[in-house]
Amino acid sequence: MASFRPAPVAGGVDSARAVLHTPAVSHAAYTAVRGQTMALAAPLSPEDCQVQSMPDASPTKWHLAHTTWFFETFVLVPHAAGYREYEPRFRFLFNSYYNAVGAQYPRSARGLLSRPRLEEVLAYRAHVDAAMQRLIEAGSLAPALLAVVELGLHHEQQHQELIVTDIKHALASNPLRPAYRAGPGGATHSVPEPGAQPVPDHAARAAMPLAWNEFDETVTSVGHAGGGFAFDNETPRHRVLVPAHRLGTRLVTNGEYLEFIRAGGYAQPELWLSEGWDVVRAQQWCAPLYWEERDGAWWNATLAGERQVVLEEPVCHVSYYEADAFARWAGARLPTEFEWEQAAEAQAATAHPAGAQTAMTRPAAAQPPAGNFLEDGVLHPVPAPGSGTGRGQWFGDVWEWTSSAYAPYPGYQPAAGALGEYNGKFMVNQLVLRGGSCATPRSHIRASYRNFFPAATRWQFSGIRLARS
Amino acid sequence: MASFRPAPVAGGVDSARAVLHTPAVSHAAYTAVRGQTMALAAPLSPEDCQVQSMPDASPTKWHLAHTTWFFETFVLVPHAAGYREYEPRFRFLFNSYYNAVGAQYPRSARGLLSRPRLEEVLAYRAHVDAAMQRLIEAGSLAPALLAVVELGLHHEQQHQELIVTDIKHALASNPLRPAYRAGPGGATHSVPEPGAQPVPDHAARAAMPLAWNEFDETVTSVGHAGGGFAFDNETPRHRVLVPAHRLGTRLVTNGEYLEFIRAGGYAQPELWLSEGWDVVRAQQWCAPLYWEERDGAWWNATLAGERQVVLEEPVCHVSYYEADAFARWAGARLPTEFEWEQAAEAQAATAHPAGAQTAMTRPAAAQPPAGNFLEDGVLHPVPAPGSGTGRGQWFGDVWEWTSSAYAPYPGYQPAAGALGEYNGKFMVNQLVLRGGSCATPRSHIRASYRNFFPAATRWQFSGIRLARS
Amino acid sequence: MASFRPAPVAGGVDSARAVLHTPAVSHAAYTAVRGQTMALAAPLSPEDCQVQSMPDASPTKWHLAHTTWFFETFVLVPHAAGYREYEPRFRFLFNSYYNAVGAQYPRSARGLLSRPRLEEVLAYRAHVDAAMQRLIEAGSLAPALLAVVELGLHHEQQHQELIVTDIKHALASNPLRPAYRAGPGGATHSVPEPGAQPVPDHAARAAMPLAWNEFDETVTSVGHAGGGFAFDNETPRHRVLVPAHRLGTRLVTNGEYLEFIRAGGYAQPELWLSEGWDVVRAQQWCAPLYWEERDGAWWNATLAGERQVVLEEPVCHVSYYEADAFARWAGARLPTEFEWEQAAEAQAATAHPAGAQTAMTRPAAAQPPAGNFLEDGVLHPVPAPGSGTGRGQWFGDVWEWTSSAYAPYPGYQPAAGALGEYNGKFMVNQLVLRGGSCATPRSHIRASYRNFFPAATRWQFSGIRLARS
Amino acid sequence: MASFRPAPVAGGVDSARAVLHTPAVSHAAYTAVRGQTMALAAPLSPEDCQVQSMPDASPTKWHLAHTTWFFETFVLVPHAAGYREYEPRFRFLFNSYYNAVGAQYPRSARGLLSRPRLEEVLAYRAHVDAAMQRLIEAGSLAPALLAVVELGLHHEQQHQELIVTDIKHALASNPLRPAYRAGPGGATHSVPEPGAQPVPDHAARAAMPLAWNEFDETVTSVGHAGGGFAFDNETPRHRVLVPAHRLGTRLVTNGEYLEFIRAGGYAQPELWLSEGWDVVRAQQWCAPLYWEERDGAWWNATLAGERQVVLEEPVCHVSYYEADAFARWAGARLPTEFEWEQAAEAQAATAHPAGAQTAMTRPAAAQPPAGNFLEDGVLHPVPAPGSGTGRGQWFGDVWEWTSSAYAPYPGYQPAAGALGEYNGKFMVNQLVLRGGSCATPRSHIRASYRNFFPAATRWQFSGIRLARS
Repeated sequence: MASFRPAPVAGGVDSARAVLHTPAVSHAAYTAVRGQTMALAAPLSPEDCQVQSMPDASPTKWHLAHTTWFFETFVLVPHAAGYREYEPRFRFLFNSYYNAVGAQYPRSARGLLSRPRLEEVLAYRAHVDAAMQRLIEAGSLAPALLAVVELGLHHEQQHQELIVTDIKHALASNPLRPAYRAGPGGATHSVPEPGAQPVPDHAARAAMPLAWNEFDETVTSVGHAGGGFAFDNETPRHRVLVPAHRLGTRLVTNGEYLEFIRAGGYAQPELWLSEGWDVVRAQQWCAPLYWEERDGAWWNATLAGERQVVLEEPVCHVSYYEADAFARWAGARLPTEFEWEQAAEAQAATAHPAGAQTAMTRPAAAQPPAGNFLEDGVLHPVPAPGSGTGRGQWFGDVWEWTSSAYAPYPGYQPAAGALGEYNGKFMVNQLVLRGGSCATPRSHIRASYRNFFPAATRWQFSGIRLARS
Repeated sequence: MASFRPAPVAGGVDSARAVLHTPAVSHAAYTAVRGQTMALAAPLSPEDCQVQSMPDASPTKWHLAHTTWFFETFVLVPHAAGYREYEPRFRFLFNSYYNAVGAQYPRSARGLLSRPRLEEVLAYRAHVDAAMQRLIEAGSLAPALLAVVELGLHHEQQHQELIVTDIKHALASNPLRPAYRAGPGGATHSVPEPGAQPVPDHAARAAMPLAWNEFDETVTSVGHAGGGFAFDNETPRHRVLVPAHRLGTRLVTNGEYLEFIRAGGYAQPELWLSEGWDVVRAQQWCAPLYWEERDGAWWNATLAGERQVVLEEPVCHVSYYEADAFARWAGARLPTEFEWEQAAEAQAATAHPAGAQTAMTRPAAAQPPAGNFLEDGVLHPVPAPGSGTGRGQWFGDVWEWTSSAYAPYPGYQPAAGALGEYNGKFMVNQLVLRGGSCATPRSHIRASYRNFFPAATRWQFSGIRLARS
Repeated sequence: MASFRPAPVAGGVDSARAVLHTPAVSHAAYTAVRGQTMALAAPLSPEDCQVQSMPDASPTKWHLAHTTWFFETFVLVPHAAGYREYEPRFRFLFNSYYNAVGAQYPRSARGLLSRPRLEEVLAYRAHVDAAMQRLIEAGSLAPALLAVVELGLHHEQQHQELIVTDIKHALASNPLRPAYRAGPGGATHSVPEPGAQPVPDHAARAAMPLAWNEFDETVTSVGHAGGGFAFDNETPRHRVLVPAHRLGTRLVTNGEYLEFIRAGGYAQPELWLSEGWDVVRAQQWCAPLYWEERDGAWWNATLAGERQVVLEEPVCHVSYYEADAFARWAGARLPTEFEWEQAAEAQAATAHPAGAQTAMTRPAAAQPPAGNFLEDGVLHPVPAPGSGTGRGQWFGDVWEWTSSAYAPYPGYQPAAGALGEYNGKFMVNQLVLRGGSCATPRSHIRASYRNFFPAATRWQFSGIRLARS
Repeated sequence: MASFRPAPVAGGVDSARAVLHTPAVSHAAYTAVRGQTMALAAPLSPEDCQVQSMPDASPTKWHLAHTTWFFETFVLVPHAAGYREYEPRFRFLFNSYYNAVGAQYPRSARGLLSRPRLEEVLAYRAHVDAAMQRLIEAGSLAPALLAVVELGLHHEQQHQELIVTDIKHALASNPLRPAYRAGPGGATHSVPEPGAQPVPDHAARAAMPLAWNEFDETVTSVGHAGGGFAFDNETPRHRVLVPAHRLGTRLVTNGEYLEFIRAGGYAQPELWLSEGWDVVRAQQWCAPLYWEERDGAWWNATLAGERQVVLEEPVCHVSYYEADAFARWAGARLPTEFEWEQAAEAQAATAHPAGAQTAMTRPAAAQPPAGNFLEDGVLHPVPAPGSGTGRGQWFGDVWEWTSSAYAPYPGYQPAAGALGEYNGKFMVNQLVLRGGSCATPRSHIRASYRNFFPAATRWQFSGIRLARS
């Protein structure tokens, strides 16, 4: 029976993905991405960087260390001649989930690691950055290794978003409702006075009326088309049949969601998936995460502190269960990921008939999409432009739940070796989200990008677009 | 903002599904299905019928009552003039999950209901059966109501399968390893002597060598084509693009699975989905459910008592995680549900160029598929015929895990009212299984049939067919 | 360092306790106790006998088997020449917690053992009874072995009480609120009509006013004085200093407890032990177990079915936390076990200046105490006699929580061997209860008897007597 | 029935305890105790002070804030004219368990409060200290209020010990095995090199042979005799009968405990309380907390980093279950708290025939006991002096488990008001420990002092003294 299992395919490359393009990682690109991470951590104290408010979130300090570990483990140790591991015990401490690298410190206990201290982790970053820059400047990296460096930068961008969402969760766990950026120095402590948050400018902006774009049945191609970086889970590009459908022209707003709440949406089991209904009752959900009703008004814990819910903003921090229930209540449904991708790709092509190369690795054809992203510094979704220009909020603001389970594309091949654990092993019991959020780096997103989270997830900037068959 | 939510569609019918065909439920069909349930319970003592060995399983007595409750609640109470509810408190006790009917007695506590006694539940069955037969014989049921009766019979067949799988789980929890049917009467108690089970005849049968059927990319239609009963989740029939692929010509055997075990399959994280690996470690899985290794031999708790694992039989009682890991180890993958359906439909069409109406409601074109089903009484999967006739084990023996998440078909509409809760509200975090098992009634299965269970499920008769891209 | 641990004491006897008296177990005594167990099971169906409603409770069938296993394991197998073990696998199935005997089937899964069936367990009982009676009739048992037989009978009496409390819990889990003894045969099923229970006769009886008996500081002896059977945890008798105190002349009533409820007792943390307050909130306790408020009236699930709470009855099914909180609210405290024993011993001596030998093993000086016991068949506490005769409800009705942690007496020695596990290993985190209940066999109780349960326990017939310093 | 509950006693004072002595809290005493807390936190980084490694432990920062909150809440806010609350929201954040003060931030989430930052908590301390010192210097505090201030200082000393035990637990959760005090500055990060810890000087010291002191039965008085501060749980002093017994002349050593381990102590259920055996198996205990076996040697995580187990040191970080099992294995038992107190009081009287007033509140008769305490800075137990001088290690080194359940003394009265929650509400399911540890402030301990923890507790410095009846 020894013949039952086929022999392994010879010549498997130990890279993160099939090399779809010629990666070219510059010193400047490396410095820009690594620097953006540091800038995100800058407003945070050592205490802030230490806190882990739930097993799914990680301390900022851990993100700073783990992204560094990624370059050390997958680039420097195997490939940089003469490189000496900074601290061998970090191999265990800062490994997230790569079984092929070895055992991992328990995820839920990351907040217990008071040592190394924040400043020691920063020294670790500096040590690895110096070695990485020497390597990049030397200029003789093989394409397969360059691809790993490029992956490391996109990996770091993912952790930039997680730094934002995780510290938001941690700060919102604090009944003082502190802001991510502490107020001016005269305060006796780093917490805002209650009720003192200004109303943002965009609150006055009216939401564009919801309309519907129509799409006929078609056989089209989805997935990454090449010519730039993509994660392995976006490949191979392949043909699918997309049935006739309609898509909402903008995101669902807080005002619309509040209508659902007031209509008793959280108390009607017929609107909910069975699992979702169980969660609603067990967790006593009655509004999006970070919302609280006091004295008849709805308040919202944001990264700028607590403030009143703004009706025109896209609703955010809802689970898949809530998105699905809202859609059912609204006589609609959520889009599939391919319905979404087809529309977003068309919109992106229209918006950018031509474009220049970005700092990192984006090819000419793939201008960064317009939208409210991390670099805008708002760190909160904003209302859709009211003019009917039809930008449609496809990118930025909030990740859009789709009804598509996260699954491999036909012919999907994870990379060989440890980096094959990057995406593939999570392909069950998760839903695909599309489009990026206000915490996503602008250069990180594209129409074929597949994010994924379990259905009960709420601490990501996740929102709702409606579809109809 | 009151206009945001569309007005409900007028004229929604309170039926289980769109009426795709003209149901014709005969007195004989009703009697046959209800009688088959009774026959399944016949070998069991009142104690056996009382036991609930885990929250996902139910006592036989509860199945007997709940299937009766279904007819009483959805047919007799609303539609049978002068019918008097047998016991109003049963409405609560025997409601499974229909929120629209009212609150439910907690699922995990069904085994605590020693009252009503088994004989009292049987009296309840008789009472409802008499009323149902009067109604059917009267012959003037509206099609919508006939459709509910028909649904009730298919519902009952689903519970027939559950009676078998649930009592198997209960009996296997007993270290005496009792058989479903107790041995001859001379024994002092209803448990077999250890090690005394005969080896089944088919054990000598060699397994057909595994070969591959090839399929080119095609756009095809899937879902129920009408002309007979189907659940709402099989509709609407719609077009999909199925990519080029290959499918294994038979099920994976115990022998092949044992090779995976011996190669250390349960100890290699790289073979597993991340969630699956967590379950393997938490539950210390090292073989299919009901297998046990003693003194170097593998034993198997079956409904006929414990016996040695037969290498040629299809492997059974594996979770999705195990099926997926095995496939990865074998250099293959699991089929999608549409790959499966396309192949099974073709096979069924070949096997039955013409056929006669079955006892229940199957149209001429839909002859029951060949296979090892409940009515065969084996209650255990059997080896594939060795001759290469290519029947392929598509139906019966074991449910086949597919890689398809259980999701609504484009344009899916659950029924209005309580029966709309039948299928739709479970469409998240479950995988589709296809083909039926040795515990499925023969007249219950068809190529478009979609079963669904969470990925960790093992107590169903679930097995593996391989695919390759 | 080998000398650190002392050599084991030579000559340890393998008996349950030091032989304090000459046990004399008659054929009649054996038959009476074993028969009483059978009589308790008689009203129950095989389904009733199968149910286990929580891990702390056991199915009636398991009690029937385990008490039999006790005689087989500790008497017949080691001491009855030629005795053949009924079924070797029962050694594992029906071992409760004797590690020295071997591994145990998991306690919380006892309700899953549908095999052996009830009738098979009864056959097991008959087999063991026949062998036991042959052994007893032979009349040549050594005193140490006779002591084990005697222990087995007292053990069986403990399980008689558990049969009552466990089936009460199981039946009360059933929303049909069935009675332990099913009603007359005309009913279509074994559940009473709602609200149809008669009010008991004693409900008219007024409760004696609560008064206080005073006691001065004294050095006295507590523990079993010899001259009859006792468990090892009642020995050795030893001297203690009992401080001055007062004790309530009767048990606390439902009416008094209802006053505590209405005063908001369950909502005032200052009345509760910290652990108790946590349990109150986590379990949402707001009344004794089995009480339910509907439409302004309090109902009580009893072994006779559901009926209204009778104010004059002793309050029952309260935890230690509730007893303690009630006492604090009442400006009192709970008695210590030695305060209780001193008073009860004095009362018993008064009540029975002389007495005859009981059927079993009670010496002349130890007439069974007066009270409402199992043999009275009420299976529910009754009001104190109103006349002020001062019987004081020391025995029967409800077990009385004391403030004494269950701990070994000075010089306590558990028996050698497996029977040493009977009591000693439970001496932490339990509270002592005294006096027996309406489910305790009359010949089983005495002033020195120490029952023990964790503080959150409510399914025993446990109530409250007040004390003051 | 309104007369059932007695009227509350008039004139209840809102103080922590009956005023047994005339408290005299000096400015110097306040400064000394508060300064000692600051000194303990000094070696810790903001990250260290943030970490909470389990629900039973608290972050150092929280201890710093809570002890300050105590003075603000119970002294300044109610009694200091013109005092303005530092931050009203701290009332909720830093309340530990005083329901009478109001709701509490969840204990297990204390580690999530990154705001206020460490430096802000230190500013809070300074603010409160200034106000307290003004109040104390004014010199006109009523005795009842002085008693609260004195209680606050003893309360702070208890938290000093917790700072030590909690940070030990947090640092030991870190696989880097860091030391409480970081090494010299040249290191690149605050973790020691593996295996680099020096062996302490005292390791050479041989343990005094274990001998036994004999005590006859006696009626004696226990509890606090007045003439100095005591917690309410040490009162009232009262008479008890202590039976004849023997007590070990020193603590059990690591060497003796290792003998127990090597004899299979953790694998023999007959040595364990039933609950303890369950914990041993569930937690897979096989040695004291902080011990680890590697390559045949036993290592110990200490506050000075990891080092080899020193055989002569007292065993430490064992639970009550382990202490009890060890004693049973050694043919002994644990002492009762009164056996312990009688011996310790005698020893203390011998050691200090006369003495001077301490800085704080200790009367002439109550010289601080000799022993290894917090102020010695060792923060680890040391071997008993070998000379047989008989000091006996009664105080310091490790808390000694007694077999006494924590219960109120006869006539115990908790204080009225919130401070009545200090001790009394924990009097169930805990065991008394006596004598103080190497983390206890020297001026904090006395012979009548009762510490208490649940039986499974291991993170305190808890050890074993043997007794025999």
